Amino acid sequence: MSRSNSQYRLAARPVGLPKPTDWEYAEEPAAEPGEGELLIQTLYLSLDPAMRGWMNEGKSYIPPVGIGEVMRAGGVGRVVASRHPRFAVGDHVSGALGVQEYCLSDGRGLTKVDPALAPLPVYLGVLGMPGMTAYFGLLDIGRPQPGQTVVVSGAAGAVGSVVGQIAKLHGCRVIGIAGGERKCRLVVEEFGFDACIDYKSQDVRTALREAAPDGVDVYFDNVGGDILDAVLTRLARGARIVICGAISQYNATEPVKGPANYMSLLINRASMTGMVVFDYADRYGEAAAEMSGWLAAGKLRSLEDVVEGGVKAFPETLLRLFRGENTGKLVLKVADE
Amino acid sequence: MSRSNSQYRLAARPVGLPKPTDWEYAEEPAAEPGEGELLIQTLYLSLDPAMRGWMNEGKSYIPPVGIGEVMRAGGVGRVVASRHPRFAVGDHVSGALGVQEYCLSDGRGLTKVDPALAPLPVYLGVLGMPGMTAYFGLLDIGRPQPGQTVVVSGAAGAVGSVVGQIAKLHGCRVIGIAGGERKCRLVVEEFGFDACIDYKSQDVRTALREAAPDGVDVYFDNVGGDILDAVLTRLARGARIVICGAISQYNATEPVKGPANYMSLLINRASMTGMVVFDYADRYGEAAAEMSGWLAAGKLRSLEDVVEGGVKAFPETLLRLFRGENTGKLVLKVADE
Repeated sequence: MSRSNSQYRLAARPVGLPKPTDWEYAEEPAAEPGEGELLIQTLYLSLDPAMRGWMNEGKSYIPPVGIGEVMRAGGVGRVVASRHPRFAVGDHVSGALGVQEYCLSDGRGLTKVDPALAPLPVYLGVLGMPGMTAYFGLLDIGRPQPGQTVVVSGAAGAVGSVVGQIAKLHGCRVIGIAGGERKCRLVVEEFGFDACIDYKSQDVRTALREAAPDGVDVYFDNVGGDILDAVLTRLARGARIVICGAISQYNATEPVKGPANYMSLLINRASMTGMVVFDYADRYGEAAAEMSGWLAAGKLRSLEDVVEGGVKAFPETLLRLFRGENTGKLVLKVADE
Repeated sequence: MSRSNSQYRLAARPVGLPKPTDWEYAEEPAAEPGEGELLIQTLYLSLDPAMRGWMNEGKSYIPPVGIGEVMRAGGVGRVVASRHPRFAVGDHVSGALGVQEYCLSDGRGLTKVDPALAPLPVYLGVLGMPGMTAYFGLLDIGRPQPGQTVVVSGAAGAVGSVVGQIAKLHGCRVIGIAGGERKCRLVVEEFGFDACIDYKSQDVRTALREAAPDGVDVYFDNVGGDILDAVLTRLARGARIVICGAISQYNATEPVKGPANYMSLLINRASMTGMVVFDYADRYGEAAAEMSGWLAAGKLRSLEDVVEGGVKAFPETLLRLFRGENTGKLVLKVADE
């Protein structure tokens, strides 16, 4: 039995926004698992802002994707062949499957997931990397206290929407920042934030003065750029800024604009700390357990933006992310469950 | 007995580098202390980079000096008249005396100092605000561990020179950054740093690659600007950046340039934290005791750059600081001891 494996391989290092020609579409026969290996059919792929960084050359928190290599992507799939003692045909797993229909694996980095506990796309959202990022970034770095004010940018996105909900569960006042009226309404009505600032139609600095009159105790930053600079002007004493991402800068062709108001850190005895979710790998279980409980109790809302189209639709679907068109976790459906 | 009190009062909010006309020189009779007050004759005044910030309007960690008010300055003086139960004529005190020959005080914020334990200018240096800033900024925020690499900018200055020495006492490898060969030699030969980078003749980024091949664990930043950006490219995993000052930016007339490489905080799971020494006021005694011991044991070197000239010389002497002409703590001598 030979399976055809469609895939995207990195073809060029993009300048600015990625173009479809930065990847090469290829079809090859799927490999057969050897001893200790398994073959996974990709069902859903996670599309993340971080993918843009992985396409760049140079040192980062993870090695870049090499030219000619299958584009890195997290995903959820089903085991279709196995010579691995820990995985059986029919198991569902999540892991770094890559932008391809079939992934050959030695089992490292794979986690079994249970479609009876949560729909599979949720394992790429609240119960996946975005959820883990939100959970540990907010609680471990942001350390919000009940009654404090938490501000989250990218508030309608996969990470931001979870950050705000967890902050609410911890008794905080939560203000989102998102682009457009539709997203802002979602942030307040679906995710339960206390308020949401529309950076496309409002001056963030002025709006924050009204929404957070006592200052910002925790700022969870997914976007960088001017929004980070605006929030810096509104810090409360001892504020914690969590640097999770900087989507506004990922496709910049000009030099990154640093936060000009960083001396607010001194004035307010505040801190700005970077976080990478992989550092918390040995605690994912703890977070997943607590968040599964919240999901089951209806206290946490998971929203996935599932796009049909298969592997072939990967480039254009990823661009939706950088155009800010998704709400909630952007997922590409690759095959029927 | 009427004493004449020469002083400088703030006359204008400077744009860029302060000009002598930003202060007004005045002479008035020194006040006589009322009940619960004392009169202090200024002997030495502390000239600090922070003075530039105090001249600006707007919210900061301390209220600005008002137009028409005596320019704020720390100093050491001798009590010449007292109706205060805690202070007697002949006592020596340190506190915010202001740029004037005589200071009327109700005793708040004054600390008695002992000229038999250390020369009076040392109470404006290692045993004064710069020393306290170095001690708490490094140990409380930087948290250096033995064997780690500590980098200090403004290394020949009042704060930087003490930071590096304390880091050495804690078993760290210490690299200074200073301007000019003479200062760099001082930093290594007098203050015992392992190396010093001359930012005027060397590329800081390249020089750091050689001097700190394993990366920078703690960066104590007194200068901001391009040097902060260069150090950001060389952080070790989990690095701590202490934001103590940004002298390169204080006189800027263009918008402050934020640290463009701040995403290195994410890549390296690093933090950048602001500190203001006044927050540690209740622990000054602890620091002074430990540093006095180091001074007495010859383990800590205090270097003051004492300029003669009296109150009248204040504006031109302060400008030496922003031209980087001082080595060690810049002190203006106002009267003979």
